[in-house]
Amino acid sequence: MEILLSRIGEVVEGKLSGGYDNIICGAAPFDMATQDDITFADTAKFLKKIDKTDAGAVIVPKNFTRSSKPVVMVENPRVAFAKVLAIFYPPAKPEYLNSPAGISSNTYIGKNFLCGKDISIAPFAVIQNNVTLGDHVIIHPNVVVGDNVVIGNDVKIYPNVTILERCRIGNRVIIHAGTVIGSDGFGFAPDGESYFKIPQTGIVQIDDDVEIGANNTIDRATFGKTRICRGVKTDNLVHIAHNVTVGENSVIVAQVGISGSVTIGKHAILAGQAGIAGHITLGDNVTIGPQAGVAASVQNGQVMSGSPEMPHRLWLRVQRIIYKLPELKKNLSEIEKRLNMIEGRTP
Amino acid sequence: MEILLSRIGEVVEGKLSGGYDNIICGAAPFDMATQDDITFADTAKFLKKIDKTDAGAVIVPKNFTRSSKPVVMVENPRVAFAKVLAIFYPPAKPEYLNSPAGISSNTYIGKNFLCGKDISIAPFAVIQNNVTLGDHVIIHPNVVVGDNVVIGNDVKIYPNVTILERCRIGNRVIIHAGTVIGSDGFGFAPDGESYFKIPQTGIVQIDDDVEIGANNTIDRATFGKTRICRGVKTDNLVHIAHNVTVGENSVIVAQVGISGSVTIGKHAILAGQAGIAGHITLGDNVTIGPQAGVAASVQNGQVMSGSPEMPHRLWLRVQRIIYKLPELKKNLSEIEKRLNMIEGRTP
Amino acid sequence: MEILLSRIGEVVEGKLSGGYDNIICGAAPFDMATQDDITFADTAKFLKKIDKTDAGAVIVPKNFTRSSKPVVMVENPRVAFAKVLAIFYPPAKPEYLNSPAGISSNTYIGKNFLCGKDISIAPFAVIQNNVTLGDHVIIHPNVVVGDNVVIGNDVKIYPNVTILERCRIGNRVIIHAGTVIGSDGFGFAPDGESYFKIPQTGIVQIDDDVEIGANNTIDRATFGKTRICRGVKTDNLVHIAHNVTVGENSVIVAQVGISGSVTIGKHAILAGQAGIAGHITLGDNVTIGPQAGVAASVQNGQVMSGSPEMPHRLWLRVQRIIYKLPELKKNLSEIEKRLNMIEGRTP
Repeated sequence: MEILLSRIGEVVEGKLSGGYDNIICGAAPFDMATQDDITFADTAKFLKKIDKTDAGAVIVPKNFTRSSKPVVMVENPRVAFAKVLAIFYPPAKPEYLNSPAGISSNTYIGKNFLCGKDISIAPFAVIQNNVTLGDHVIIHPNVVVGDNVVIGNDVKIYPNVTILERCRIGNRVIIHAGTVIGSDGFGFAPDGESYFKIPQTGIVQIDDDVEIGANNTIDRATFGKTRICRGVKTDNLVHIAHNVTVGENSVIVAQVGISGSVTIGKHAILAGQAGIAGHITLGDNVTIGPQAGVAASVQNGQVMSGSPEMPHRLWLRVQRIIYKLPELKKNLSEIEKRLNMIEGRTP
Repeated sequence: MEILLSRIGEVVEGKLSGGYDNIICGAAPFDMATQDDITFADTAKFLKKIDKTDAGAVIVPKNFTRSSKPVVMVENPRVAFAKVLAIFYPPAKPEYLNSPAGISSNTYIGKNFLCGKDISIAPFAVIQNNVTLGDHVIIHPNVVVGDNVVIGNDVKIYPNVTILERCRIGNRVIIHAGTVIGSDGFGFAPDGESYFKIPQTGIVQIDDDVEIGANNTIDRATFGKTRICRGVKTDNLVHIAHNVTVGENSVIVAQVGISGSVTIGKHAILAGQAGIAGHITLGDNVTIGPQAGVAASVQNGQVMSGSPEMPHRLWLRVQRIIYKLPELKKNLSEIEKRLNMIEGRTP
Repeated sequence: MEILLSRIGEVVEGKLSGGYDNIICGAAPFDMATQDDITFADTAKFLKKIDKTDAGAVIVPKNFTRSSKPVVMVENPRVAFAKVLAIFYPPAKPEYLNSPAGISSNTYIGKNFLCGKDISIAPFAVIQNNVTLGDHVIIHPNVVVGDNVVIGNDVKIYPNVTILERCRIGNRVIIHAGTVIGSDGFGFAPDGESYFKIPQTGIVQIDDDVEIGANNTIDRATFGKTRICRGVKTDNLVHIAHNVTVGENSVIVAQVGISGSVTIGKHAILAGQAGIAGHITLGDNVTIGPQAGVAASVQNGQVMSGSPEMPHRLWLRVQRIIYKLPELKKNLSEIEKRLNMIEGRTP
């Protein structure tokens, strides 16, 4: 693909410093870009050595002009670069569909199927009864969509995903392969020696612009809904239990586990392998460190680390001492000896 | 659905205090129930405010009568409520089957298939050779059942589950979506620079009344069997390695990992993200805390927390000190200074 | 199956001490073997009691002859035993194929499919466009192979695996059920309130002799490749993020999470549930303990444990003190009291 640099400038709403008619054929990182590529630099580290990249043009922050090569000045170079990447590497459109309606012949489509325009349903996908899909929905192979599921526009469901009955998926949602949406919440009533299963009557609702990683498990609510709010991104192998709410634009890194009835605010970040105990609340803009075990609610804006959790700054100090515990213990023994000496000496 | 309160009383084997002819249309939690619903209260917290719920009737413990509204008195209100929920929200019965025998036309059924009555095999399920299914088995779409697998009665296998050759599944077992039963145990013999695969010749046996969560992995034994005993419940993303035995009615919470050849007793509870080292034994009624890392065997009835594990009560005390390590270190420095002073002063 | 002991000796390149014409019908562990079985003993513990096994023959280390029963002396008894197991328990060859070309009639095969000889493609597998398979490849049911994927010889892909577009799989690779290869890396550019998706343009490359466990997730690179080098073995539920390199013959135990752009050397061992922070390097022959959280690069040959990580020997000493923190704190209080006394007493 060949694109004029000036056209790229338009797409990212940037300002050019020359090179309007230069032809760009790809986008690549600073150190991998060649003469035909555009790259980006948004930190002092890279801006300082901007003339060292082989790229034919560089996306830079507003008002940055100290460059011998053409630059595209934008508000947010990283986002602009992602937009350019999306031009050169558009999402693959499945070509295995062999029906004009976009539905492969070897699918199973249940009763009362309603769908928008320009959908793609791949081989061996199962659409159960009373399912609604919006426009431009792509259902990859071996996906199972349960009874009464509603899916919005521009949604992409990767292979081997399971979406169980009555769950609701918003617009522009991406669900990566192997993920399960709407499995039963883990609810049992102790009944003497054994456990009696508590029916899980609720659903999972995933709002607009959410991206769910591969092999996640998101359980349906016992009553009501487990809710993943607008803009949330989850990494791979994340577990979200019944009746959890994850607030808008929160980020859940790989292998995090969130117990039942937890409420998470907006713009939270949960680092990898963290675990959140049941029935607590994490406020807006909370950050939870990797492998943290959070047992109590966390106020807005707090940064917590460790297992059990503590304020991150305290945790940093604690950790430094943990390494030195053997030394500290030795000091204590010496002090005791000195004290014994003194006590022996003094009257 | 409309049910007489007296009928509900019969189902849960409870005693009514009036309202025999009241009509109940649903079941809901204490705070969400409306006039037409039945709810339950089993703790002082809820029993105290029993007249505050809008529910038309309340399931309560035996001998509790202090209520202005009809109550159903039972041994175990939580279990009774779960039973009522199961009436109002019966498990969905798949309707996508289009063959009188209950086998969808677009399945693959191998040789020597034996099955009981009233089974359902959904589209794109694969039943390999010499498979036996009991009565009332539901195989959801895209499930793969390997050669020589035997499955009991009233079993439900959710979509995209894989059950590999020779594994055995008991009666009334539920396996949630995406789970893998019978993958090879992780066994390799170091052979100079590389590893030589040790064939995993055993199976997985899952006994009656077990429920396995979504995206679990349960490995087959090297020899003999990996065994999940009667009544065990596992949450999502649980890993159970080769040759493990999980005893009756034990509960394994999400993201727990159990290493090879571990034996777990009856009624154990392993909280979320705990890890159990290989070749150890956890006794009956053991409780393991969240994120605990258990490296040594645990006696019957013990409660262990932390990584590495310690008795829970010790762990509680340890944790309280962990937070205060910086303070403790400071105290120690001060003591040293005071000691220096004293040593300078004393003869 | 009946095999002459002398034939087994040939297969494992071992030296017999008699019993050349004995017939062996199976292979089993030391304590489970019967008269018809062969077993192995490679440690003092078992060699000492070699006459206690019921096995008809025993594989032993070179030059070990103190046995009343026939022995097969080899360099590496464990590897030799695994080889014998592979004779008695050859990997199951799927029989559900109904086409002479080895491709089940109910599969989806895209355009420009190229394959070697003796392949097996099971029902409801999807091979998208421009896929290349080598000789003796077995694709189990419900596997999805994306556009332009290249797979080598003697590869086995278990059910419900997803391999997304352009990924490359070497020779003699095994991928267990439910695993996802080539999901998008977790890359987003913060854009005011929300996140903008960074297209993940790279691939996953899996080299020869790799075995990947069940329900793993291995993300494609943002640019270039995520690479799993020759001989690597991963257990179940492992997460490997974008742009990671795992060096030759490294072993990744269950539920390990490896963050983006991590480089791991050869012969590393990462124990269960360990987490590795992004952009760091673990050297050759590194060992990481279970549940360790590794935040900084680790030099060749180091053994690290704990979260955050520390040298394993230090960690052992630290752990011993952790248990005794309450005691240590009490000691400190007593010392303070004694000091107060002394200070009161001394002038």
